[in-house]
Amino acid sequence: MKLLRYGPAGQEKPGLLDDAGKIRDLSGVVSDLDGAAITPEGLAKLKALDVSSLPVVEGSPRYGAPVANVGKFIAIGLNFTDHAEESGMPIPTEPVVFTKATSCIQGPNDDVMIPRGSKKTDWEVELGIVIGKRATYVEKDEALDYVAGYVLINDVSEREFQTERGGTWDKGKGCDTFGPIGPWLVTKDEVGDVQKLGMWLEVNGKRVQNGNTDTMIFDVKTIVSYLSEFMTLLPGDIITTGTPPGVGMGMKPTPVYLKAGDTMALGIDKLGVQKQTCIAWEKK
Amino acid sequence: MKLLRYGPAGQEKPGLLDDAGKIRDLSGVVSDLDGAAITPEGLAKLKALDVSSLPVVEGSPRYGAPVANVGKFIAIGLNFTDHAEESGMPIPTEPVVFTKATSCIQGPNDDVMIPRGSKKTDWEVELGIVIGKRATYVEKDEALDYVAGYVLINDVSEREFQTERGGTWDKGKGCDTFGPIGPWLVTKDEVGDVQKLGMWLEVNGKRVQNGNTDTMIFDVKTIVSYLSEFMTLLPGDIITTGTPPGVGMGMKPTPVYLKAGDTMALGIDKLGVQKQTCIAWEKK
Repeated sequence: MKLLRYGPAGQEKPGLLDDAGKIRDLSGVVSDLDGAAITPEGLAKLKALDVSSLPVVEGSPRYGAPVANVGKFIAIGLNFTDHAEESGMPIPTEPVVFTKATSCIQGPNDDVMIPRGSKKTDWEVELGIVIGKRATYVEKDEALDYVAGYVLINDVSEREFQTERGGTWDKGKGCDTFGPIGPWLVTKDEVGDVQKLGMWLEVNGKRVQNGNTDTMIFDVKTIVSYLSEFMTLLPGDIITTGTPPGVGMGMKPTPVYLKAGDTMALGIDKLGVQKQTCIAWEKK
Repeated sequence: MKLLRYGPAGQEKPGLLDDAGKIRDLSGVVSDLDGAAITPEGLAKLKALDVSSLPVVEGSPRYGAPVANVGKFIAIGLNFTDHAEESGMPIPTEPVVFTKATSCIQGPNDDVMIPRGSKKTDWEVELGIVIGKRATYVEKDEALDYVAGYVLINDVSEREFQTERGGTWDKGKGCDTFGPIGPWLVTKDEVGDVQKLGMWLEVNGKRVQNGNTDTMIFDVKTIVSYLSEFMTLLPGDIITTGTPPGVGMGMKPTPVYLKAGDTMALGIDKLGVQKQTCIAWEKK
């Protein structure tokens, strides 16, 4: 299934994408696509629906992030060898963990705002894992049982805030609008082998990132198992799993960063496409 | 006001502590003490109540964390000069920011579980700021307008996970049970000068931490203003503001860490006292 949330920001309704590419409304079935709706039981209930009986949503509504009330938005850094190298960082021997503020989550095509004073806003196409079942100290070979599905994420990052302002990376990862997610939560049965997905990102129409989840240093099951040693993962938590090479910070001879008016487009096989326009900072 | 949540874990009800030290039930007034209940408007509504008309809660129920559905649990590191020194870390020139997983939040007197494989579980008495109003790019001199009140926090930390496992500190800060909060959310009008509060912590009855919020490097208003540059703070978000000297990691000649059976007691002037017993790891 391709689950989604549509409508104005803050007023999204739950829906799904049918085989003909039309949005079907799920408001009559679930109040929202939050953690409770995407447990194994919740997904089984949705899967049992007769899709053709659900109301068709006309027009082209805005997409919101496909999961509501995300409890934790956790991120894995430097998870592609080439990206660690372009970042001038050592290849990690165990997963690098940091956190994105949940307040940065937004729809997949909403504008990305360059923060006040930012000179180094950068892009990162990433595979996101959506947790569907409470996971604590889970073994690697059972880890996928705790996954509801996958999402496309742009892990927008401010490099100066991230690495030149002291402390951890969290300062440069959670600015408002830095977490576009979606368009869909694609359930894992529909994704198949999550470690064979092509991923790409374009800035102003020019391809800058090209990668595949088959070159991750730590794969999805390793990440879920590893994180569950340090914190309990709950339904609706999202883990973004690192980016392949081609970010602005790694450009030669000079890094390239985003400015108002720039556009990003990104995609991962089976998970859809996002498009964002960068806008100048304003207090909202 | 001293706002609180009482009852079994996961089934807490809202309440307040009256002047005689009795819990009064607020279930008839608010469904829970979440972000919406502690906005300026929400607090004004509670303040207008005739406390004597509220039902008295008999007995000694368990306290839960006094804020429900915390969106972000943000932490400031090394915010006392002496603690930075005992940790062998440089004095920060701007606030060190990291994140505690919201899933670690628990009641003030619930058991603290030593994580699997942990050898370095440590204590940290801290002042917690509870946000009451959406804060984005707020100036220092208006920052306290965005604060609903304050809480006592034990920022339990696993030092090996925090500093020896690669990446950021977040791995050692969000283990289950590592976020005892409460007993009360004390509204800021009742706290008075938040930069003149004594703070202490005892392990097995022995005083190990003694401090005062007047020696913070970055004070409350600076922290709120600073963080609001990097992320929007929302009602119900909690910021824990760093610990004074006397943690286990800093003990001479040998660091001392917690083990099952150890007890902690801690307090901050006006914010109450917490008591925890450490228990061995078990999968829950």
